[in-house]
Amino acid sequence: MILYKAKSWLPAVWHFHTGPTAFALFRRLGVVLIYVAIVTTVEIHYFDTRLKDTPSSFLSAMGILLSLLLIYRTNTAYDRFYEGRTAWGALVNNSRNLALYFNAVLPLDRHEDRLFFAKMISNFPFALKNHLRGSTNTDELELLDDEDKQTLNRFDYKPGGVSSLLWNRSESLYREGMLSTSQHINLNQRLTAMMDVAGICDRIKSTPIPFSYNLFIKLFITIYVGVLPFTIVQAFGYMTIPAVVLTSYILIGLELIGEEIEDPFGVDRNDLPLNQISQLIRVNVHDILNYELPQAEKQAAKPGFVIVT
Amino acid sequence: MILYKAKSWLPAVWHFHTGPTAFALFRRLGVVLIYVAIVTTVEIHYFDTRLKDTPSSFLSAMGILLSLLLIYRTNTAYDRFYEGRTAWGALVNNSRNLALYFNAVLPLDRHEDRLFFAKMISNFPFALKNHLRGSTNTDELELLDDEDKQTLNRFDYKPGGVSSLLWNRSESLYREGMLSTSQHINLNQRLTAMMDVAGICDRIKSTPIPFSYNLFIKLFITIYVGVLPFTIVQAFGYMTIPAVVLTSYILIGLELIGEEIEDPFGVDRNDLPLNQISQLIRVNVHDILNYELPQAEKQAAKPGFVIVT
Amino acid sequence: MILYKAKSWLPAVWHFHTGPTAFALFRRLGVVLIYVAIVTTVEIHYFDTRLKDTPSSFLSAMGILLSLLLIYRTNTAYDRFYEGRTAWGALVNNSRNLALYFNAVLPLDRHEDRLFFAKMISNFPFALKNHLRGSTNTDELELLDDEDKQTLNRFDYKPGGVSSLLWNRSESLYREGMLSTSQHINLNQRLTAMMDVAGICDRIKSTPIPFSYNLFIKLFITIYVGVLPFTIVQAFGYMTIPAVVLTSYILIGLELIGEEIEDPFGVDRNDLPLNQISQLIRVNVHDILNYELPQAEKQAAKPGFVIVT
Amino acid sequence: MILYKAKSWLPAVWHFHTGPTAFALFRRLGVVLIYVAIVTTVEIHYFDTRLKDTPSSFLSAMGILLSLLLIYRTNTAYDRFYEGRTAWGALVNNSRNLALYFNAVLPLDRHEDRLFFAKMISNFPFALKNHLRGSTNTDELELLDDEDKQTLNRFDYKPGGVSSLLWNRSESLYREGMLSTSQHINLNQRLTAMMDVAGICDRIKSTPIPFSYNLFIKLFITIYVGVLPFTIVQAFGYMTIPAVVLTSYILIGLELIGEEIEDPFGVDRNDLPLNQISQLIRVNVHDILNYELPQAEKQAAKPGFVIVT
Amino acid sequence: MILYKAKSWLPAVWHFHTGPTAFALFRRLGVVLIYVAIVTTVEIHYFDTRLKDTPSSFLSAMGILLSLLLIYRTNTAYDRFYEGRTAWGALVNNSRNLALYFNAVLPLDRHEDRLFFAKMISNFPFALKNHLRGSTNTDELELLDDEDKQTLNRFDYKPGGVSSLLWNRSESLYREGMLSTSQHINLNQRLTAMMDVAGICDRIKSTPIPFSYNLFIKLFITIYVGVLPFTIVQAFGYMTIPAVVLTSYILIGLELIGEEIEDPFGVDRNDLPLNQISQLIRVNVHDILNYELPQAEKQAAKPGFVIVT
Repeated sequence: MILYKAKSWLPAVWHFHTGPTAFALFRRLGVVLIYVAIVTTVEIHYFDTRLKDTPSSFLSAMGILLSLLLIYRTNTAYDRFYEGRTAWGALVNNSRNLALYFNAVLPLDRHEDRLFFAKMISNFPFALKNHLRGSTNTDELELLDDEDKQTLNRFDYKPGGVSSLLWNRSESLYREGMLSTSQHINLNQRLTAMMDVAGICDRIKSTPIPFSYNLFIKLFITIYVGVLPFTIVQAFGYMTIPAVVLTSYILIGLELIGEEIEDPFGVDRNDLPLNQISQLIRVNVHDILNYELPQAEKQAAKPGFVIVT
Repeated sequence: MILYKAKSWLPAVWHFHTGPTAFALFRRLGVVLIYVAIVTTVEIHYFDTRLKDTPSSFLSAMGILLSLLLIYRTNTAYDRFYEGRTAWGALVNNSRNLALYFNAVLPLDRHEDRLFFAKMISNFPFALKNHLRGSTNTDELELLDDEDKQTLNRFDYKPGGVSSLLWNRSESLYREGMLSTSQHINLNQRLTAMMDVAGICDRIKSTPIPFSYNLFIKLFITIYVGVLPFTIVQAFGYMTIPAVVLTSYILIGLELIGEEIEDPFGVDRNDLPLNQISQLIRVNVHDILNYELPQAEKQAAKPGFVIVT
Repeated sequence: MILYKAKSWLPAVWHFHTGPTAFALFRRLGVVLIYVAIVTTVEIHYFDTRLKDTPSSFLSAMGILLSLLLIYRTNTAYDRFYEGRTAWGALVNNSRNLALYFNAVLPLDRHEDRLFFAKMISNFPFALKNHLRGSTNTDELELLDDEDKQTLNRFDYKPGGVSSLLWNRSESLYREGMLSTSQHINLNQRLTAMMDVAGICDRIKSTPIPFSYNLFIKLFITIYVGVLPFTIVQAFGYMTIPAVVLTSYILIGLELIGEEIEDPFGVDRNDLPLNQISQLIRVNVHDILNYELPQAEKQAAKPGFVIVT
Repeated sequence: MILYKAKSWLPAVWHFHTGPTAFALFRRLGVVLIYVAIVTTVEIHYFDTRLKDTPSSFLSAMGILLSLLLIYRTNTAYDRFYEGRTAWGALVNNSRNLALYFNAVLPLDRHEDRLFFAKMISNFPFALKNHLRGSTNTDELELLDDEDKQTLNRFDYKPGGVSSLLWNRSESLYREGMLSTSQHINLNQRLTAMMDVAGICDRIKSTPIPFSYNLFIKLFITIYVGVLPFTIVQAFGYMTIPAVVLTSYILIGLELIGEEIEDPFGVDRNDLPLNQISQLIRVNVHDILNYELPQAEKQAAKPGFVIVT
Repeated sequence: MILYKAKSWLPAVWHFHTGPTAFALFRRLGVVLIYVAIVTTVEIHYFDTRLKDTPSSFLSAMGILLSLLLIYRTNTAYDRFYEGRTAWGALVNNSRNLALYFNAVLPLDRHEDRLFFAKMISNFPFALKNHLRGSTNTDELELLDDEDKQTLNRFDYKPGGVSSLLWNRSESLYREGMLSTSQHINLNQRLTAMMDVAGICDRIKSTPIPFSYNLFIKLFITIYVGVLPFTIVQAFGYMTIPAVVLTSYILIGLELIGEEIEDPFGVDRNDLPLNQISQLIRVNVHDILNYELPQAEKQAAKPGFVIVT
């Protein structure tokens, strides 16, 4: 994710135009450039289609429909981005509340339990992050004993495994009498909320915008850009070429931005900083349960100027 | 549902234009083609209506109104699609949380109970899926004893039957003393949430967009396309024919996409992959409660490149 | 409510144009027709106002503002329609969950209690439906004893009366020891949710769109249609008459659709099928609590092709 | 709040144009009239600026931006209106549910407690209404003993005082053993919900739309109306005057409607009927707890044709 | 935050145009002025590009796309502003409900506990406010003993520290037997809600609008304003200069407003009055728990005409 400050625009702009999205954009603009150059030259020198003096209001209605479609598409993508961010925000809240709960409920001499929850609550965001990025790697997870490791290995779906370990330990504390009835009721909502966050992220990841909707916008842009040079070549002459390329830059650029932000869990430059948020949860949870973390871990939870995760 | 990757567009486009929606689209475009060909020929060769030099801004306002209507209609349809997906996402979360709950609460030696819940939680999405598709078939459900089968047969509304079996078993565990007060309270919300998902899906399925709203858009498109050739024939000549057909492709296409995605529980190409989600729930629930499923079942929960369900 | 199938459009269109909304629409179009005929004739034959060659872009901005207003007004109306539908959907869910709860909690030999809840949960939607339609009729309610009838008669607000009977019986079961602490806690949310649905429906019914907002749109349409013939008469000649009438059809039609769907609890053709939903709740609740209903009652819960309720 | 019926438009329209908002509108239109009359006369008779033949599409884009801004501003205002109405609707639900709860839980012989809750639940909306209208008047509140009056006098924030009395009495019932554990848990959410409604209303009242956003729209309208006569005077001649005044009527009118409905708790004609809703709560609560109210009080809860509160 | 009254516009307008946002706006308008002056002079006197007679409808479509983008961007920013305000509104509600709870539950002779909660609930908004403004200053917090101070110092994240103190004291009251099971359950949701508010504010603060979306709008405005003078210079002559500057004022102004309100926790003129809301919570909480605050503190919770915080 790119964090930017109002004062230093130029490096950010440069940074933006060197990313993979920008590359995809430039490749498409190249195709448009070749197409419009051919059309313009042919029209002016050799061949005169009737379309040149088309009444503009008809095309203007199509232009407005395309604008509306693009805006809604961008906003649908942004809503997905924001829903993903909100889900991770809820995970931060929930982890902090779980830590506050265990800190208040578990006596200080239950050192082993306190450490278990400090580690395991912190493991959940890392497991979820890796799952969302298609990995079942558990290197970032801190597991205290081998039994836990075995349990976790059994799970294809690692966040479910971490959650299961949390559930089992909580219920065994309750059976042991460490949690009273009211404390047990209060705990349950927090444990449930964890998997709800995971489910929301899974849903966003696995359900793209319906294919026909997505395809339609691309087709519409292609038709619009394809027809455009014929309708303005008489008035613009050779200026048709920059005009059409500029228009394409805006239309295709907007479409690509939508595509980039609609799946917010990847490692693109506009994706959510899941590494940093996971680390933030680890730092906060250890902070609350009063375990000191190394300085390097604390540092990793702070956003820098440009973070690519 | 069509899942697509950014890299392989062409097969997806081809796939799209061979579906039943595309067929409906092409049939309507055929009618438009015949109509506009007749109008253009008659206008140019035989008969000259005054409408040709109409001021375009008046029609442009109508075009914008139509654009706005179409966009909102598409987005209303998308909201229904998304609400349906969110409901099924909530079902996934809820099933996982129920499984985590029973795994933590039921001792390992209560094998029969554990298996009952593994099977019955997994049955709910299948029952709901079939109900939403108009079937009361229970072949995909796994029932352990004949009494359950009898109870289920009594229900016209199968998801209600599965839910009733879950409720009854839970209450009998509670009466037996297997669940404490706090565990019982915690369980209740999960059981209630199941039927809420079913109710949301029922509502989406049984309440289409108000008839007069739906009809009005179709009438408006018909009027717009009907008037269009008269207003551009003088300027475009025989190019009127492709111009009107292309415009119709966009307007009717958008309307058809809306119609296709507004009822997301069917087996169309853009509908939700209910089979796969149901299977995913079954795999996750068995995973959490530690029952091994055959590899074929696990495979069916994974999305392929193109899934038609 | 009109339910329609994609295959049989023509009867639905005919049906639509014979309803009371269509009648109101035609009456207004008649007024527009007379007005525009007079303006056109006078302009062409006798009197030539300067307005004829007005620059169109100024009017186009007004047309767009009007379009936006109409679209938002339609969508605000649709949101009310949808909120009402969602509230009734929540009532369906809640009634089913209450029935599942009592079925699991009450032993089979508590026949009288089971029947009481089967009847009384089913009575709530009927009482609410009649209240929303301005009636305090209790003929559709099934009351088992005279004391209940007396209690209900005391209430002006019948849904409150039914709810009060449910509350009192539940609390007396709890005092009797039939419900444990956890069962009692679980019950409470369901009883509360019932009155929440009633309150949402009351709110939608009693709070129209603010008067000045509503009035403003009507004034704006009147002004726009009133000015329109002057601005196009020179270009269109006698074609001005159908053009203005068609435009009016679209503008007034959209406004009337908004008005029709914004109060979704009436008995108009686009209103919610409250009779059928109430009946569906009765069938589902009896189904779950295992009481057989006559076939005629079951039939009444199924949507036909056209339902006017 | 103006309630209107479809059949009797004319009195409502007259009523609307005699209110204070209409007066503010007419005053501004007067200023526009003088301005445009001067501009038009000067342009036609003495002085010819070049602006007259400006290309309209540039201004049209500005007109669309202004239209969009106005529509969003109106809808933001409407959202506030609706949020306020929803909060008061939640208060109605909550008060009814509290009354149903105490009616079912308190035995009939606890006459004093039942009367206390009937009066005190009814007092809350009146205290909130007065607070929102800037008054700490407690004349409409019905307090049963002097101790309560003293407690209430201590509070600057009267709704907090009423709520505190309800909390204290509830807790003392619980300590006395009148409420069981489960009944106590169930009660808590209802008491909390009351202050949540008050907080939402406070927030709406104390947070206007950001100043710069609000100011910007006014500036934009001023610029647009200021430039408009220059761009149409050549084409319209003296018709410029009514054209600009009519446009201003629409633009300023829409802006004023937004301003009127965005603060829904005042006593303007479009504000919420808080007096009537408060009275409705009192009638419903007494109805449920079975206390007879005088007929005059019941009547005051019913909406008439025109209610100004 | 600027609070304004309808009657006194002129000082508010003056105030607005002297703030830092206005300064940024004027600086950019200066650049536009120089650019357009050069372009206009060169075009008219020396050099005649073909672009002058471009067909406007093509540019109009781009203008509409830009308008839509700007409006959505402004509204996304407003949504963030409103979400932040709603979160703080929830904090007000929650603090009041916590105070009402402790006032009803704690006997009057538990003076020390009552004072602890009066102070500590009031500390939370101040700690959160400072955290959101990048400070860990605790001068505004009122801590009663040194142990609390030590605990708080240990936390980098001060709101978490205050919350931890509240949790620990509550649990110790429960262990001591001062809170019953039902009272304990009821308390938990309030404590959890506090950290949820903090998490929502953290999320809003740390997640700006995606960089590429933000950048794109700025680029689009630059391109639009850059091309504009060429397209209108022939028609407008030297009037091009004020026309382009005015257009830029509107476009850049709208963009800057969006930027200003999207981060609502700063000390800008349009930011939320966090100092005043924190003070309001302190006054309300002390009011409810019956501790007298000095008059100066009460005064600081009241909004004046202009508050810059």
